[in-house]
Amino acid sequence: MSAARAESPSFAAWRESQQAAVERALSQWVSPDAPAGLGEAMRYAVLDGGKRLRPLLALATSVAVGGSPAAAMRAACAVELIHAYSLVHDDMPCMDNDVLRRGKPTVHVRFGEAQALLAGDALQALAFELLVPDDGSMAPDMAASLCRLLARSAGASGMAGGQAVDLASVGLALDQAALEAMHRLKTGALLQASVMMGAATGQVSAAVLAQLAQYGASLGLAFQVVDDILDVTADSATLGKTAGKDAACDKPTFVSLLGLEPAQAYAGQVLDQAHAALAQTGLTQLDTLHALADWVGHRAH
Amino acid sequence: MSAARAESPSFAAWRESQQAAVERALSQWVSPDAPAGLGEAMRYAVLDGGKRLRPLLALATSVAVGGSPAAAMRAACAVELIHAYSLVHDDMPCMDNDVLRRGKPTVHVRFGEAQALLAGDALQALAFELLVPDDGSMAPDMAASLCRLLARSAGASGMAGGQAVDLASVGLALDQAALEAMHRLKTGALLQASVMMGAATGQVSAAVLAQLAQYGASLGLAFQVVDDILDVTADSATLGKTAGKDAACDKPTFVSLLGLEPAQAYAGQVLDQAHAALAQTGLTQLDTLHALADWVGHRAH
Repeated sequence: MSAARAESPSFAAWRESQQAAVERALSQWVSPDAPAGLGEAMRYAVLDGGKRLRPLLALATSVAVGGSPAAAMRAACAVELIHAYSLVHDDMPCMDNDVLRRGKPTVHVRFGEAQALLAGDALQALAFELLVPDDGSMAPDMAASLCRLLARSAGASGMAGGQAVDLASVGLALDQAALEAMHRLKTGALLQASVMMGAATGQVSAAVLAQLAQYGASLGLAFQVVDDILDVTADSATLGKTAGKDAACDKPTFVSLLGLEPAQAYAGQVLDQAHAALAQTGLTQLDTLHALADWVGHRAH
Repeated sequence: MSAARAESPSFAAWRESQQAAVERALSQWVSPDAPAGLGEAMRYAVLDGGKRLRPLLALATSVAVGGSPAAAMRAACAVELIHAYSLVHDDMPCMDNDVLRRGKPTVHVRFGEAQALLAGDALQALAFELLVPDDGSMAPDMAASLCRLLARSAGASGMAGGQAVDLASVGLALDQAALEAMHRLKTGALLQASVMMGAATGQVSAAVLAQLAQYGASLGLAFQVVDDILDVTADSATLGKTAGKDAACDKPTFVSLLGLEPAQAYAGQVLDQAHAALAQTGLTQLDTLHALADWVGHRAH
């Protein structure tokens, strides 16, 4: 179920156009003018890399709910900045000590640890700044909702909390429930927030929000199961990062817990749940969100 | 001018009651429940320490403009969380490598570097979360304004940018203008934001805002000049951190640039500017803001 599979031409065209639009927006908003090389380090961390999955989720959800395209692009870039900062900090020697990311030296290797720390910190602040433009282009209640969703998903009860659990889990025999709880925070919260922030750029009923939240949760879990699968089946060149790292670090994964083929089957089940939740929304413009779930489930890196 | 001086009894009473209120609010909002020890590290970084200068500025400015006390307490705690996270990261081995802060082991010494990194990251997210409560207690336009002020002052064109300049300045012969430009970002931006966020909890004219901004800028500069003076005149026990550190690191300071007595005179001049700006606002409830400026200028640690 999780073998790499070709995208439809229409989804691929949408994806590429939106990835390019996100790149342009990020390049505009992450200024090179920040002092003492900080801007350069921030741009290095953010530009020209990554699948832009979180932005794509925000943008596609906004389309599905008839949301504001301008607000959606700000939400999309804000979640990507949070994701980018977390990678910068996660790669540092005191965390995962990774030297390769997206096929390039990591930020601390290229710019030094202190600058990497500051670049990550500044990217987090910039993420929130993007959500509160002072040009009247975003309604204050939408801005506040977007900030709330982003802050909760990034902080102690979201991504940062999940990273703390991950740190504490090395070498421990986690069961599947504990592993899923960790990933629900570490990667799931921000992926789900990408969907919910896209939804917050429009007007949606609580019932539809609940189904979108379920879609985001299932997609987030599928993402992580596939990530664990790719860690053992792909090579570093394809991944753009160090393959086999989790096993080498004695970190629990879905593959170490379930075995490779059951993990692949599980990814398929979770993806089916994502599709089912989408269908339950009753929204009409869902093709791209369905395609994004398949893209997550069947990607090669 | 910058010799330690007794506070008035009424200011001291206000200060102590507000410091206690801030402590209670922070203790409520920085939950111990964050997973895997993260909550403990966050609370260690935030609670039971510091002068709470930034919260006091926000609270006193809110009073001066007749602002919302509930919003002011959220603003006060948000700026303090940003300040606290910056200290955690700044103390790390890749930055200043400090082992003592407020008389206690620094967060990375107590909890390890990885947890310190994450605690700082989570504190930044929490700062923004505090500004967007979902209980209807803050008007969305006020929440958005507060988030905007905080994000700008914390990020690349504020505190984080100033830290990058500071890193790049070690061993360089900065002139006074360059030193002030660095501090305007590194510590000045967040001190000024504390004032402006307090102002944003009420309704103020642009002219008054401009004078409050000048007050915040002058107070921020005075704070740094006095900090440099104390680094050479106070001992570690009084400071609660390592004294003489700047000189040992060959960092440019106002004392190394101007000499001790001229630096003291300069602190006095800048404080006078802060008082003058306040007087220009035409606001009536300014006693506490005047007293805070004196407190900054005449503190012993």
